[in-house]
Amino acid sequence: MSTSVPTIPRSTYEDRLHRVQQTLAEQSIDWLFLGPSADLFYLTGFDAHVSERLNLLIVPQSGDPSLVVPMLEAPNVGEAGQLASVVSWADHQSPIAKVAGIVTGEPGRIAVGNHLYSAFLIRLQNAISAGSWIEAGPLMRTLRMAKDAIEIELLEIAGRNNDVAWEAFIKAGPISGLTERQALDRLLALTEEQGTGKSWGICASGPNAAAPHYSGDNRVIRPGDSVIFDWGGPVGGYYSDVTRTVHVGEPDEEFRKVYDIVLEANQATFEAVKPGVPCQELDRVARKVITDAGYGEAFLHRVGHGLGLEVHEEPYLVEGNDLPLAEGFVFSDEPGIYLEGRFGVRIEDAVVCTADGGRRLNESTRELVIME
Amino acid sequence: MSTSVPTIPRSTYEDRLHRVQQTLAEQSIDWLFLGPSADLFYLTGFDAHVSERLNLLIVPQSGDPSLVVPMLEAPNVGEAGQLASVVSWADHQSPIAKVAGIVTGEPGRIAVGNHLYSAFLIRLQNAISAGSWIEAGPLMRTLRMAKDAIEIELLEIAGRNNDVAWEAFIKAGPISGLTERQALDRLLALTEEQGTGKSWGICASGPNAAAPHYSGDNRVIRPGDSVIFDWGGPVGGYYSDVTRTVHVGEPDEEFRKVYDIVLEANQATFEAVKPGVPCQELDRVARKVITDAGYGEAFLHRVGHGLGLEVHEEPYLVEGNDLPLAEGFVFSDEPGIYLEGRFGVRIEDAVVCTADGGRRLNESTRELVIME
Repeated sequence: MSTSVPTIPRSTYEDRLHRVQQTLAEQSIDWLFLGPSADLFYLTGFDAHVSERLNLLIVPQSGDPSLVVPMLEAPNVGEAGQLASVVSWADHQSPIAKVAGIVTGEPGRIAVGNHLYSAFLIRLQNAISAGSWIEAGPLMRTLRMAKDAIEIELLEIAGRNNDVAWEAFIKAGPISGLTERQALDRLLALTEEQGTGKSWGICASGPNAAAPHYSGDNRVIRPGDSVIFDWGGPVGGYYSDVTRTVHVGEPDEEFRKVYDIVLEANQATFEAVKPGVPCQELDRVARKVITDAGYGEAFLHRVGHGLGLEVHEEPYLVEGNDLPLAEGFVFSDEPGIYLEGRFGVRIEDAVVCTADGGRRLNESTRELVIME
Repeated sequence: MSTSVPTIPRSTYEDRLHRVQQTLAEQSIDWLFLGPSADLFYLTGFDAHVSERLNLLIVPQSGDPSLVVPMLEAPNVGEAGQLASVVSWADHQSPIAKVAGIVTGEPGRIAVGNHLYSAFLIRLQNAISAGSWIEAGPLMRTLRMAKDAIEIELLEIAGRNNDVAWEAFIKAGPISGLTERQALDRLLALTEEQGTGKSWGICASGPNAAAPHYSGDNRVIRPGDSVIFDWGGPVGGYYSDVTRTVHVGEPDEEFRKVYDIVLEANQATFEAVKPGVPCQELDRVARKVITDAGYGEAFLHRVGHGLGLEVHEEPYLVEGNDLPLAEGFVFSDEPGIYLEGRFGVRIEDAVVCTADGGRRLNESTRELVIME
């Protein structure tokens, strides 16, 4: 709680907007449209409300950006109002007409933020005859993937909060008899006590642990279960994302074997991190460990994803992505083995790529923890 | 807690899918694409995870629907797997190619769910040469606006839970000295104790109450403040949405006057509800009361929005919307007056349109409550 959380200075937002305009020019893109999203927050610090009312940042290749916002949300714009001209619209007005009034001349290529609702894109496509509409994702990732010092510090604080919470959680008493929801709530409360914002998580027990994105929460945890906890939360907007797998009571030999394979894959992936290595290479490293041990079919997902203002963001560590790692990239290292109807194991850390290789942002124990 | 919550039977989902296909035929739409959204949940009961991994329901004008899902989320499909053919894709595969493989022939008009990410729409537009891409919103609203008996029952339970929580909250002790977050957390905990799921809310105190979509939460509530609480949560997927405004200590004459005007506008709107009345008429009724009293400029938003699987959905009660109300429509009635830098008042109820007029789904006191 006592950790002081750094804030992003206005000059950083100005610099980011300047760099995005440079990139628009380099890529011959005329306009950038961003709705409420991490992209918008990254460029302006404005945490816009996602709803049926359009909020849209409009960045021309040169000149001043505009921010189209619902009148009743205009007070939320805050300091972002000093980075862009705010154009507000009342409920009986058309925000699309406001946008069309700003995008004058002959709009050639317009890049649209990944998360803008399709309803808005279709209305914009009908109102503005652009040469082409393209994804802004590839453009925004060139700015967002490499984190600066303050961003890494925020991610470190977030990771450390997960560590403290985890060490407290495994000593906080039995989980057998709790529902998955109750066990998860205990862990999230411990995490938020450290100063982390609204946290999220998955607790998947017994056979549920064999579904990597299990979405339920009401099974009662029992002796003999493997239990996966995958959780995190934001500090200054930047997320932690950690997974630990525990066993309730003594595990059998196969569980121990599977756990050790996943741990080895996690470590091998970590050791392979350095600038220049293609993203897909990390996935291959983890997959080789698990496949050589005979469980290749049970590793159901990519080995990792970027981490920052979003829990999942670029770069994705997946076969087919030959983007080279660079200093400042932050991503998860999370191999897993899932045996349908039986159990699952996943061990996940957040890792930053430095000039010398990987550095983990969370360090709570990766050894097998046996709980009651 | 003891209220039994009804569940939507499979036959209802089958019926909804049948009706949506009829509507596609009537409107000469060839395909419907829905990502994770209330629309998808409405048609199939599948509460898909919103992420960079594509989940997409594909409904042809005739024949069987398909559900394209990430392999690691396939176990979450549940009973929806009996309503559509499930096509899963692994992380190293292209979900867009899977969709293009399903949409064969010459796709003419494709309707896309409002909330699908633009990144997916742009990729689909590049992969599938449709005659035109249109919004699915107008189509889906024809199904979703008029609630059936079970939907109304769920909304009633949700509203009643807010009522019980509110009556307990106003007796639960002083709010002066609490932060907005602390006061709101007390109210949300009382609401969730009634069986409501993960709840949300706004607590806006003093001058913050003059911003209808205030997004902060750390001001300390003080004597002399007006405090707006706008909150709700889901029961069986269907949301409550109620606003009450209290005053901390004795209010002055102007506050009482403003409160009474808002209360009169809320009541006048309620009394105007009946089948056949255009949506915009309700907005006009509320606006007339407030304008005649001299505060027209301070009523910053439309009088209401539909309520159901989403907190904001069709129909919107706004100038320009001449859609006639029909039996089973459920919407908010929430006039407000916002005096910048000073205070705000909003009073909001959920109302269902019946053959005989409006019926409120929440009944906690609308009289001015003075708290400490």
